[in-house]
Amino acid sequence: MQGTRQPADTYPPTGRTVPTRSPDRAAYDKELVHAILDEGYVCHLGFVRDGAPVVLPTLYARVGERLYVHGSTGSRPLRAAGQAGPGLPVCLTVTHVDGLVLARSAFHHSVNYRSVVVHGAAYDVTDPEEKRQALDALVDHVVPGRAADSRPADKKELAATAVIRLDLREVSAKLRTGGVNDEPEDLALPHWAGVLPLRKGYDAPVADPGLAPGTALPGYLAAL
Amino acid sequence: MQGTRQPADTYPPTGRTVPTRSPDRAAYDKELVHAILDEGYVCHLGFVRDGAPVVLPTLYARVGERLYVHGSTGSRPLRAAGQAGPGLPVCLTVTHVDGLVLARSAFHHSVNYRSVVVHGAAYDVTDPEEKRQALDALVDHVVPGRAADSRPADKKELAATAVIRLDLREVSAKLRTGGVNDEPEDLALPHWAGVLPLRKGYDAPVADPGLAPGTALPGYLAAL
Repeated sequence: MQGTRQPADTYPPTGRTVPTRSPDRAAYDKELVHAILDEGYVCHLGFVRDGAPVVLPTLYARVGERLYVHGSTGSRPLRAAGQAGPGLPVCLTVTHVDGLVLARSAFHHSVNYRSVVVHGAAYDVTDPEEKRQALDALVDHVVPGRAADSRPADKKELAATAVIRLDLREVSAKLRTGGVNDEPEDLALPHWAGVLPLRKGYDAPVADPGLAPGTALPGYLAAL
Repeated sequence: MQGTRQPADTYPPTGRTVPTRSPDRAAYDKELVHAILDEGYVCHLGFVRDGAPVVLPTLYARVGERLYVHGSTGSRPLRAAGQAGPGLPVCLTVTHVDGLVLARSAFHHSVNYRSVVVHGAAYDVTDPEEKRQALDALVDHVVPGRAADSRPADKKELAATAVIRLDLREVSAKLRTGGVNDEPEDLALPHWAGVLPLRKGYDAPVADPGLAPGTALPGYLAAL
């Protein structure tokens, strides 16, 4: 890229976003972080309950420098975020596995991946307009274009859904790319070595048997 | 299945393994839990540091009723597990996303998934034989048959690698399968509805450019 990177383009590293292991794999570039976040839609959300960690998979969406997670108003982390005055301390992690790295030595086996870890406090979204936008973003994050092609949530559904917000402030990406890093003395070993790239994408859509007559597969789904 | 399920076939539910939301999606069957765990190799490991949650992606393997995670002896959770006398409280979560469920209403959009959440204490594995078996299991868990087809870790590599163990005791699976659950009054809406199944597998292996002459792709990789 041209020009000098400005501090505004990166998340300032903190004690907990600088890894003790493989710090060369860590990155704080906002563009990279956004790209990793936008490519996924399932995160693992961690919080503390009764002093012990809890990690649950859930959907998320990014809107600018904010992440949103939604769930039933009855679910424990969402209820806890609503009750916590200063916000619920959470760690939200998104991971893409890109390939398996098979080295000649067991020790140098690895995985190509890109992950983002976000630390911060989650707040209950109470503003109706922000909540509505967050829910649209959650649907569009999974399938771009889908929010406009579905019935929006009604009052009762909105009331049954809690949305929490986590600002992107204390954030790091971590990634491993490339090939095998074997020890020089292992290169002559007769073991196959290389990378198995993960295949990504979708199989053919399975239409609901009760579609209204004449309902065709929309273009934004056919394109996936 | 024939016969009556025995208590030994299930993990006893506890306060934290019974979800407050969609309890009908929770399962405690050992066979099902093992199958979900064995199908994946990347988990999200949660622990508490300075009172705040941390969630990191890492490889894992199952050996019977034990899970193993490995890492550098310098990595924070592994170091913490080694130092914690009563074990480091962790939550280890494995998630497979199987499909996107696109409903006519935004509210009923969902994801087909299978996840396992394990709560417990992680202990540093100090027995050399258990450690060696765990490391073999970690390699074989990613690619079955690979441990025997790579150079085993030497003394120095073993010393640089920490392995922690988490027993399968407080465990639950959670899953959503099937199609769209729209409200009856939405069925006539003109929106396409159905399931987009995720495609899984690998693209063609990319061999390391420096393979020893005559090294062919082994059968266990070609089969993937």
